[in-house]
Amino acid sequence: MFGENYDVIVVGGGHAGAEAAAAAANMGSKTLLVTMNLQTIGQMSCNPAMGGIAKGQIVREIDALGGYSGIVTDKSAIQFKMLNKSKGPAMWSPRAQNDRMRFAEEWRLMLERTPNVDFYQEMVSGLLVDGDKIIGVRTSLGIDIKSKAVVLTNGTFLNGLIHIGEKQFGGGRAGEKGSTGITEQLTSFGFESGRMKTGTPPRVDGRSLDYSKMIVQPGDVKPEKFSYTNTPILKTQRDCHMTHTSALVHDLLREGFDRSPMFNGRIQSIGPRYCPSIEDKIHRFADKDSHQMFIEPEGWDTVEVYVNGFSTSLPEDVQFKALRSVVGFEKVKFFRPGYAIEYDYFPPTQLKHTLETKLIDNLYFAGQINGTTGYEEAASQGLMAGINAHLKINEKEPFILKRDEAYIGVLIDDLITKGTEEPYRMFTSRAEYRTLLRQDNADLRLTPMGHEIGLASNARLKRMEEKLSKSESFVDFFKQTSVLPEDINPILESVGSATVKQSDKMYKSFSRPKVTMEHMLSLAPVATFVKEQQIDNEVLEQTEVQVKYAGYIAKEKVNADKLHRLENVKIPAGFDYSKLKSLSFEAREKMTAIQPVTISQASRISGVTPSDISVLLVYLGR
Amino acid sequence: MFGENYDVIVVGGGHAGAEAAAAAANMGSKTLLVTMNLQTIGQMSCNPAMGGIAKGQIVREIDALGGYSGIVTDKSAIQFKMLNKSKGPAMWSPRAQNDRMRFAEEWRLMLERTPNVDFYQEMVSGLLVDGDKIIGVRTSLGIDIKSKAVVLTNGTFLNGLIHIGEKQFGGGRAGEKGSTGITEQLTSFGFESGRMKTGTPPRVDGRSLDYSKMIVQPGDVKPEKFSYTNTPILKTQRDCHMTHTSALVHDLLREGFDRSPMFNGRIQSIGPRYCPSIEDKIHRFADKDSHQMFIEPEGWDTVEVYVNGFSTSLPEDVQFKALRSVVGFEKVKFFRPGYAIEYDYFPPTQLKHTLETKLIDNLYFAGQINGTTGYEEAASQGLMAGINAHLKINEKEPFILKRDEAYIGVLIDDLITKGTEEPYRMFTSRAEYRTLLRQDNADLRLTPMGHEIGLASNARLKRMEEKLSKSESFVDFFKQTSVLPEDINPILESVGSATVKQSDKMYKSFSRPKVTMEHMLSLAPVATFVKEQQIDNEVLEQTEVQVKYAGYIAKEKVNADKLHRLENVKIPAGFDYSKLKSLSFEAREKMTAIQPVTISQASRISGVTPSDISVLLVYLGR
Repeated sequence: MFGENYDVIVVGGGHAGAEAAAAAANMGSKTLLVTMNLQTIGQMSCNPAMGGIAKGQIVREIDALGGYSGIVTDKSAIQFKMLNKSKGPAMWSPRAQNDRMRFAEEWRLMLERTPNVDFYQEMVSGLLVDGDKIIGVRTSLGIDIKSKAVVLTNGTFLNGLIHIGEKQFGGGRAGEKGSTGITEQLTSFGFESGRMKTGTPPRVDGRSLDYSKMIVQPGDVKPEKFSYTNTPILKTQRDCHMTHTSALVHDLLREGFDRSPMFNGRIQSIGPRYCPSIEDKIHRFADKDSHQMFIEPEGWDTVEVYVNGFSTSLPEDVQFKALRSVVGFEKVKFFRPGYAIEYDYFPPTQLKHTLETKLIDNLYFAGQINGTTGYEEAASQGLMAGINAHLKINEKEPFILKRDEAYIGVLIDDLITKGTEEPYRMFTSRAEYRTLLRQDNADLRLTPMGHEIGLASNARLKRMEEKLSKSESFVDFFKQTSVLPEDINPILESVGSATVKQSDKMYKSFSRPKVTMEHMLSLAPVATFVKEQQIDNEVLEQTEVQVKYAGYIAKEKVNADKLHRLENVKIPAGFDYSKLKSLSFEAREKMTAIQPVTISQASRISGVTPSDISVLLVYLGR
Repeated sequence: MFGENYDVIVVGGGHAGAEAAAAAANMGSKTLLVTMNLQTIGQMSCNPAMGGIAKGQIVREIDALGGYSGIVTDKSAIQFKMLNKSKGPAMWSPRAQNDRMRFAEEWRLMLERTPNVDFYQEMVSGLLVDGDKIIGVRTSLGIDIKSKAVVLTNGTFLNGLIHIGEKQFGGGRAGEKGSTGITEQLTSFGFESGRMKTGTPPRVDGRSLDYSKMIVQPGDVKPEKFSYTNTPILKTQRDCHMTHTSALVHDLLREGFDRSPMFNGRIQSIGPRYCPSIEDKIHRFADKDSHQMFIEPEGWDTVEVYVNGFSTSLPEDVQFKALRSVVGFEKVKFFRPGYAIEYDYFPPTQLKHTLETKLIDNLYFAGQINGTTGYEEAASQGLMAGINAHLKINEKEPFILKRDEAYIGVLIDDLITKGTEEPYRMFTSRAEYRTLLRQDNADLRLTPMGHEIGLASNARLKRMEEKLSKSESFVDFFKQTSVLPEDINPILESVGSATVKQSDKMYKSFSRPKVTMEHMLSLAPVATFVKEQQIDNEVLEQTEVQVKYAGYIAKEKVNADKLHRLENVKIPAGFDYSKLKSLSFEAREKMTAIQPVTISQASRISGVTPSDISVLLVYLGR
């Protein structure tokens, strides 16, 4: 039935699979996307949102390289927020709420419009291997489809097992079948596999909620967007809302703990630490009697609502009773209960930096199959696997991002060198060079590379080069243009900064705290320059970051170098980590358990961040 | 978890379930729609089209009563055709191609906007029964949900078994789980159940087709629509295309017959006679070496294409090889193969006219569970079940449509009195009074009834009354207004009709063959009347039918009465039906097998139509 051979077969149509297929095809590989259901391509299995801290940066990196996630996000967004705008630019993180149906539809249509992508709906139940090289896949109907490379992106579907209270049943997602066969076969080839767990909250009927009792969470007044291409900016947005649990809610939930698969031993596998279930939060932080909940609309028109912060696998009656005690949820009606799902993953230390497996040539893994959590983490792995599959079969050099080039580099380096014992999520703190890995400069960092490998288009590169040249000349303008005291002093006074007595370069005043681009734009020569040079918002932002954080960026670079040099410092035996309150809770817990002998060893422990290492170094006097 | 009791629980969210929930809720019942997947509400499982001969009339009837199918169809249409416009108005049948995703989304959003409809996603695996009365349902999680009435609309999901060639696996639809538990329980209550079969063709990649080799099938130049409400009329449309099979294609298909579940005995149950698989067509009509195929786009933007006329459960490699030999399909790529599905149904003779089961009070069946096929047949049963469930629990008179009032009446009367041994599909020939049951007058026939039971809104009734009064006064205008020979003769000449010598009423000329409303509109007094009275297209159409077919309608009514009187005529033993070539093939086959003793008995055989009875009567000299 598939007479011709494919270059790349991608198994799975989620965030990882969709990016992998798009990347391989756009680079010129004849690509087949095989999925169990063509109507669920690009399905957001959990919350209807993209981006967030560190994750938003990843989406921008994917976009800068020529991936689709940013475009799809922009086209289906219903709300946009730049998180952490009050902090330094390393922390600025774009986040969007999305229309779940639109998001999936955009993904499917983007892929349909991509030449070289074919589609086929069926379960892949086995791999075709010749010696130690992949040569295709076999479907559940017994169809063999040949290819030069295969990318597995099975998400939570491999032997998926759904838990709600004491009940459990097979499935890859609520209402969808799980996938079988692949784990067993890979294990027979010598792969090590494990089980992970994740969960999702109840979906509820928005008509049954009393939003007047909650706190409105609107989008940004001036929304931005993810893609560096000409995707639209939101003109209207939908609000989210915030509410919180209470001691009563916690008590009601605790009543179901003996029937919880998390606590009665039925679920053995580890879930995402930073996306814990509500029962986990209550259990681990017993002293807190309230947790925040974010109520997110599922789209422009639907009444369905996502209850962020209330992920749970407690029995459905316990979920219901407890949720009805939350402020604003007194009359809540369920669309479906929350649940936990266990699935197979393959410890990612079995992979090369290209995401190719060490055991089988030309076989790539991407997404949750590698033990990660999050749409963005999955999408970026898919992208890299798709790129590298294409490069490999065309006998080209692999494309590997370094830790100082991209969050994607940090992610993959972490995965393959440290492995992960729990679902791996990206944080800014995982990146040593996070001041360099900003959301505003992902295009400057990565688009030239994406272009060089044949993924990012000429138009993308041109756009990026224009932005770069304009922001450089704008920085030069500030460095070269003087401003009179009578012009700059009102600005300095307005922000409580000391006034100046004589004319000086604009750059100097602009560098002062609290002086913003907006202030500078009130100066006539700046306004004229902006108008004449047709400076757009992106260039304004980039220029502002370059001027105002130049010193900070340089300083961080020095720190990072220092960290490098001091990596092999010894830690005294029996060291008491509990006294180092500045360590993250996770680091204290893990280092206490593992008792690393050196800082270097400590740094390789999954979840121990560069910040934790800095704290240790300071304490140890380095 | 469901503390409150519902009035009506609807199980299933397809065409039947969606209409049932909407009807019950709009009449005031607190309604819960339970479905295995809330993302597949209103899913078109088979071809992306609504309406067609007799089926289009049903959609208009549903709309006239206050159902949603017409509105959803109009909002998601990508092409509209009024079939049989060249024949008498009894045969005019609206048909739309739809965007599959938009259709489902519109259904879901319509239901979300309907007060009194709640949603819950889970499999219903059992019924709660107290004595011989339904009191609710039990879900697969073991949740009991109480209600006064339950409507089952399980479609093809009850113990669904999918066949492709020699492979078979459980499922309710490709990629979706089947449903279990209900059949077994109902059988234990004494219900008789059976198996039916249906099938669907491959879905293919439109980019791989050569449309230049096919015949374009555009929509109507002046598209109309289904709903009598103010839904939009299509401004642009997408084309369908026509191609055909050949002797070569048939030969290639025949090569797989020994591996066909239809022919090797694996599938025992009967499929829809008028929607046969391609292998069935080849087998039954061995002398034909070509069958038409209609290539239907799946939506506005998607490249996915539906291959109407090529339904098959042959092995996928046979499907593929044969389809590649069809003109225009030389390079076809599959999205997924065609398949057959077997599922449980309950012979509908176990139902009352209200679609309530005889064995269990307040339990209603609608759709494929009753042995029907077709979206429209399902939707209309759902509507009637929803209406009657509401009326029953409110101790009101049942709402039953007679055979001379609606196709819906014919459908339900056929089902519960004749039963059906094969998937039942509506035809105009099944209706004795089809000249009365036209698509143009469904509102006049049914909206007053729909309004009286509290379903059709005041606005609908007002619209209908305006249309009625305007068309009546327009007919009167033609009856009372004279036209001069010099004005009417050019029209009469242009259609080859004899000219007149003196002034006469317009009605008389208008009644002549080939004289149309368009001709009449060219007369100044008519144009003035239309403008002054603000006559719209619907009134124009209605008036034209009333004037031009008045005699025909009256005559048909006489024939129908005659048929009534002669219903008990005896048929000679051993009668040779094969000599009556005007009988339908189905009628000859079935009457030969069953050998009915009387015309009355013959008329009750499933598939024997009033036309067949007329033929018999003529032959028997009555």
